[in-house]
Amino acid sequence: MNDAMGIGLLGCGVVGSGVARLLLEKSDRLASRAGRPLVLRRVAVRDLHKERPVELPRSMVTIDPIAVIRDPDIQVVVELIGGVTDARQYVLEALTAGKHVVTANKALLAQHGAEVFECARKHERTVAFEASVAGGVPIIAAVSQSLAANQITSIQGILNGTSNFILTAMAEQGQCYEDALREAQKLGYAEADPTLDVDGGDAAHKLAILAQIAFGIAVPFAAITRRGITDLHAMDLRFADELGYTIKLLAEAWLDGKQVALHVEPVLLRKTDMLAQVRGAFNAIQVVGDVVGETLYQGPGAGMMPTASAVVADLIDLAVGRAQRTFQSLKLWSATNTGFTMQSPMEVRSRFYLRLLVEDRPGVLADICKALAKEEISISSVIQHEALDEQEGEVVPLVIMTHSAPTGNFLKALRHIDAQKSISAPAVYYAIAD
Amino acid sequence: MNDAMGIGLLGCGVVGSGVARLLLEKSDRLASRAGRPLVLRRVAVRDLHKERPVELPRSMVTIDPIAVIRDPDIQVVVELIGGVTDARQYVLEALTAGKHVVTANKALLAQHGAEVFECARKHERTVAFEASVAGGVPIIAAVSQSLAANQITSIQGILNGTSNFILTAMAEQGQCYEDALREAQKLGYAEADPTLDVDGGDAAHKLAILAQIAFGIAVPFAAITRRGITDLHAMDLRFADELGYTIKLLAEAWLDGKQVALHVEPVLLRKTDMLAQVRGAFNAIQVVGDVVGETLYQGPGAGMMPTASAVVADLIDLAVGRAQRTFQSLKLWSATNTGFTMQSPMEVRSRFYLRLLVEDRPGVLADICKALAKEEISISSVIQHEALDEQEGEVVPLVIMTHSAPTGNFLKALRHIDAQKSISAPAVYYAIAD
Repeated sequence: MNDAMGIGLLGCGVVGSGVARLLLEKSDRLASRAGRPLVLRRVAVRDLHKERPVELPRSMVTIDPIAVIRDPDIQVVVELIGGVTDARQYVLEALTAGKHVVTANKALLAQHGAEVFECARKHERTVAFEASVAGGVPIIAAVSQSLAANQITSIQGILNGTSNFILTAMAEQGQCYEDALREAQKLGYAEADPTLDVDGGDAAHKLAILAQIAFGIAVPFAAITRRGITDLHAMDLRFADELGYTIKLLAEAWLDGKQVALHVEPVLLRKTDMLAQVRGAFNAIQVVGDVVGETLYQGPGAGMMPTASAVVADLIDLAVGRAQRTFQSLKLWSATNTGFTMQSPMEVRSRFYLRLLVEDRPGVLADICKALAKEEISISSVIQHEALDEQEGEVVPLVIMTHSAPTGNFLKALRHIDAQKSISAPAVYYAIAD
Repeated sequence: MNDAMGIGLLGCGVVGSGVARLLLEKSDRLASRAGRPLVLRRVAVRDLHKERPVELPRSMVTIDPIAVIRDPDIQVVVELIGGVTDARQYVLEALTAGKHVVTANKALLAQHGAEVFECARKHERTVAFEASVAGGVPIIAAVSQSLAANQITSIQGILNGTSNFILTAMAEQGQCYEDALREAQKLGYAEADPTLDVDGGDAAHKLAILAQIAFGIAVPFAAITRRGITDLHAMDLRFADELGYTIKLLAEAWLDGKQVALHVEPVLLRKTDMLAQVRGAFNAIQVVGDVVGETLYQGPGAGMMPTASAVVADLIDLAVGRAQRTFQSLKLWSATNTGFTMQSPMEVRSRFYLRLLVEDRPGVLADICKALAKEEISISSVIQHEALDEQEGEVVPLVIMTHSAPTGNFLKALRHIDAQKSISAPAVYYAIAD
């Protein structure tokens, strides 16, 4: 057990530099936790001359990932190059070469999990991926190990810190989306091109991984209903607030009989809900199990050192021998049938928040209610603020909260409502978390 | 790996019944998670004829714990009898007989951890104890495995659901302690004799275990500074609220250089702090690591099924072989010197909330400020609400928030303040979390 574990690093960007720094600067601590030295042997980078936040010995750095993978003194390859095409190739090569793999690559697992895990099983190697979902929050360990006595019944996650930072600024400072995004970019919480963060794509990758672990279903990325926060209007945050709710970009998956409903969307949450109180760039996940009940996990979802903390925890798990046993027992992305299937998005039941801009004249509300009633959707509350008599005929916001209904019915009613002449802008709607 | 793992249960009260129910009713699920059947073979109880929430086959039940421990078809003994004397004896006998032990017994580990763990190492067996702290919250796994790359720098926990339920009722409904306790008892959140819950003893046991895992220090139970919530006055919750704080019974341990400060006390927390928002009978623990930063774990801290969920997770970990590796690598309660020592309670630095009942006459505030200044304690804010002129000379509350100071200095100043004639009741004080 006192043999060193040799580690090769593919990619030395932000997270890779954090991992290298820990391995180089905290080697005594890590050796004591792992029961053997964790030795960084080689690092593959794209540009030898780039400045990095960690100083690497010259001899350690190469531009050839294959040389790292084939190094006989390396037993574990840490893949942190990101993207899908090259990462997939290197991970498969590493497993085939008999190396364990640690990765933070959510897109890779969400899109090629089955292939990667099958390759690992074939070569009797382990893939560890705690860092792929929610950075420093140990959600993979929680769902796959700590809650192993449970059938998970629902997962609700704030899985994208950038979006949550923007939503917090919008809710607390009344900023519009564009201003909040600019502030997030200035403070380093959002990238120059924030698309994947704010359109829900990043959270959907993470949700696909969690759905695999919790429900054993392989959800094609494209099949996940996904709406981002770019169109979110400050007005809707204000109405939500008035109703006792806040709006969060949630990645949700829950059991409905033998089916799993899932989506990534801005959702109204009651203010007293723990997830509603998660501010700024934090990630948080509420997991409900049929034995334990409600549990919640929160922490930094991204960043150099938080993510490195998760990667190195996986390395320690491999050195101790835990990760191998977890990997064998989980049978992820295998053909094992758990009996669950994905629910069609149109069948997913939810309560809805509906905000319309309507002409303030007699009969408008009646027409809208009729359209909802036709689809058997009942109304739980309505807000239309008192307008002055002289405003009659002008455009005013009307907010309706519905009882639970299938998404398909709701969208059908919406088409009828949007077609009405008295509606001056497309309807805005969000799901309401129970 | 497909051999059944035989399990013997000592004690079949609330949690024991939950564990038995899971093992008997969810055997397919558990076998699939563990890679082998988990088979409950024998259950030792005190009273054969007591009604239980689980139906056990007659032949399984015995009043002889030793018969369970010595049964050759049992590889794991689950100790759920509670208390210290008998539990210690049976756990040591089980380990000596070559059985692994799973326990939820915080008092046993807090008081006899060194002996129990040494015995386990001697006989090359494993002790798993996720259920001993915070029931359904996987805090042991988080601190010992998921955060293994970190030096933990602080742990702050709401570790007693009964106290938190009472404090929530006091803060939100303005109830006094006695009324809130009665309600908690009526709803089953507090026992007829709630002493250990409300005096901080239960939380102190749990803190001793966490301090061992996070800092490697063995803290004698009696050495933990401990104050309960029985004297907490609704007035102080109101003043805290006015200042932007709430009061929680916190179990805290944090690094101050090479020393570990720790206590269990009612503490003022800013309302925006995640722990301040934990309501009702939930437990929650914030753990800060030097690599990951702030993380938080929340869930049900007690109860039949949440605690059973943690016990069975340990059983699955043993069946998979993870628990054995974790136990070997952690070296808990061993002679290993981590370099940390326990800080003397008088040296623990904190900000303080001080509430006095004083005569409303000239010079009183000056005398109090002088007493604090003499101990080099500076004042951060003062509340004394405007009194009517005709009230001069009557008794009014005076609230002072201090800057950080050693506890010893603060208590010395307090003795001088309490001795002053203008102070009509003993001073009330609480630490303020940073």
